[in-house]
Amino acid sequence: MENFSMVNPVKIIFGKDTIAQIANEIPQGSKVLMTYGGGSIKKNGVYDQAVNALKGFEFHEFSGIEPNPHYETCMKAVALIKEKGIDFILAVGGGSVLDATKFIAAATCFQDGDPWLILAKGAKVKKALPFGDIITLPATGSEMNSGGVITRAETQEKLAFSSPLTFPKFSVLDPTTTYSMPVRQIGNGVVDAFVHVMEQYLTYNEGDSLLQDYMAEGIVKTLVAEGPKALKDPTDYDVRSNLMWASTWALNGWIACGVPEDWATHMIGHEITAFFGLDHAQTLAIVLPGVMTVLKEQKSKKIQRLGKEVFGIEGADAIAKTIKAVELFFEEMGVKTHLSDYGLGDEAIDKVVNRLAERGWKLGECHNIAPEVIREILTIRK
Amino acid sequence: MENFSMVNPVKIIFGKDTIAQIANEIPQGSKVLMTYGGGSIKKNGVYDQAVNALKGFEFHEFSGIEPNPHYETCMKAVALIKEKGIDFILAVGGGSVLDATKFIAAATCFQDGDPWLILAKGAKVKKALPFGDIITLPATGSEMNSGGVITRAETQEKLAFSSPLTFPKFSVLDPTTTYSMPVRQIGNGVVDAFVHVMEQYLTYNEGDSLLQDYMAEGIVKTLVAEGPKALKDPTDYDVRSNLMWASTWALNGWIACGVPEDWATHMIGHEITAFFGLDHAQTLAIVLPGVMTVLKEQKSKKIQRLGKEVFGIEGADAIAKTIKAVELFFEEMGVKTHLSDYGLGDEAIDKVVNRLAERGWKLGECHNIAPEVIREILTIRK
Repeated sequence: MENFSMVNPVKIIFGKDTIAQIANEIPQGSKVLMTYGGGSIKKNGVYDQAVNALKGFEFHEFSGIEPNPHYETCMKAVALIKEKGIDFILAVGGGSVLDATKFIAAATCFQDGDPWLILAKGAKVKKALPFGDIITLPATGSEMNSGGVITRAETQEKLAFSSPLTFPKFSVLDPTTTYSMPVRQIGNGVVDAFVHVMEQYLTYNEGDSLLQDYMAEGIVKTLVAEGPKALKDPTDYDVRSNLMWASTWALNGWIACGVPEDWATHMIGHEITAFFGLDHAQTLAIVLPGVMTVLKEQKSKKIQRLGKEVFGIEGADAIAKTIKAVELFFEEMGVKTHLSDYGLGDEAIDKVVNRLAERGWKLGECHNIAPEVIREILTIRK
Repeated sequence: MENFSMVNPVKIIFGKDTIAQIANEIPQGSKVLMTYGGGSIKKNGVYDQAVNALKGFEFHEFSGIEPNPHYETCMKAVALIKEKGIDFILAVGGGSVLDATKFIAAATCFQDGDPWLILAKGAKVKKALPFGDIITLPATGSEMNSGGVITRAETQEKLAFSSPLTFPKFSVLDPTTTYSMPVRQIGNGVVDAFVHVMEQYLTYNEGDSLLQDYMAEGIVKTLVAEGPKALKDPTDYDVRSNLMWASTWALNGWIACGVPEDWATHMIGHEITAFFGLDHAQTLAIVLPGVMTVLKEQKSKKIQRLGKEVFGIEGADAIAKTIKAVELFFEEMGVKTHLSDYGLGDEAIDKVVNRLAERGWKLGECHNIAPEVIREILTIRK
């Protein structure tokens, strides 16, 4: 096991009818900004529950945070916060709202130039506004980590950041808030969480970090067991609870402790979204089987372990069968797995490869995924 | 899944040569009290590493904390803290040193009468001195939770407490510090961690909290795979790392989220230790197979799941075979599993049953383990 240092101070409030508890978590006398997206929270009752819980606080609203949230949108929220003298943010929605809120919290307090530097240059976050959230979409794990991904619409760039100062103070996970979620988002969420685990599990590493492997497999087994049920029966509380909790654990940092991490699928996927606007999970469903195929020797032991433990695959051709099983699971969740399914081909591949070549990144846990390897990965996913 | 609320703010610093990092974690200018036990840390080099790391801090020492730490000992430390104006405690050792330190931290600041009330009456801890630790024995999980167990020698009482204010600020886990641990303590530690998981897993509950079950099974599989290896080769770094990390997870609170908990084995075991001085793990190894046998109908689904997932047992008599497999695993770890192995018989059973009858506790996840059931459990473990 590799050395590590890790803390995750997020308070989780999980279960039915728990939204009212936020009133006990936000410091008394705070001026609150409630951030949210396109208004689905007004249809499913979450908005009303949040507003009820905020009685007694002065609060303002900032809506219109888009999927793959824009830097430009975030900066409008920063201006509102400064104008109103806000001192606590409450994010209500999915991972995009929460990612945006993390960046808004950091950008509000940033003193070292343009806050874009946090994303573009990894400039250090020295202070951030405190925030909590009511998460309504199990997918990104953002509710229990300190990272976020922001897109600059102007330049078609999608970049990640994180800081010890951008953990939520609390996250409310009420599985009933997911009942009204569109099927496409449920499918996307399961794929996203699945791939989060793979980025931390499916590496050259095998056998020297047993507990992390078992935990990773437990998360994936939960997603594979419950994902299809969630599509069929949107109001099965146990199914939604298990999915929500598994998605949180897929990216709360604990399964990454002491092990190598990949993240090539995400880095390639981010560029596809930035250029062509595909859903985040759609890009992951395209890229992961390609990464597994091209890197199958380096990752052979872990692919075999995944096959055996999660899909019950053993014996001849176990690696190829496991890659196929992953692809079929994504398709079962309603997420297409080839570039052509989204009308993309060679031209798109060129654009993504050239952008990653410009960045000069060598991706993957062995830093051996150079532009020509990315081309190979994408070419077999046409 | 049941509703829950959970936070675990402990910073984990894990790996080889990490003890020096405590200097960055203790607030500058702190007056530190280093607490430890019988002096084994002086033999294995941990004491020297801690003292080196504390250069630049004013620090004092309090040694002699015994296994099953005594209230009386803790109160001596409280007096020293007040005399010296200590404002940070560094615990160095195993779970007993850390449990004692948690109680010392709370008792120092207790203003509502005799600090014994924290244990005897569950009096609320309103303030506690901050503390961190270097844990040298994987077993109790105390390094990542807020609970402790203290014994009053005078009255032969062993009682537990916990408070949100008694989480360590940091815990250093360097697996190499465990190389010199006596075989008996390694065996005890594995049994202790195993039973911690069972208290949170082996209940009537099955199927509605998938991830927690998989995580619990992952911890137990790690203990079962690595425990025997640790006895054979004390300096296998990966084995010791896996054991240390699994022991921490056995009782850091996350696998208990949203599920019922038992703890009957611990409550009965505490009384055996309080009266007869057996090691904590020895009492658990005696009692757990008895609890499993007497409660086998209530716990049948989970016992079968444990048998299948951890020991590969299926088919006819799976329950009886699984209980036997647990007993054999404890014996393999060098921990005897019957009262008679420790020279105890009917008289001891009477004493324990009478004490628990006096307390009026109904134990177990269904509160159905009354004194006559405790007698049944202990009688089959003679």
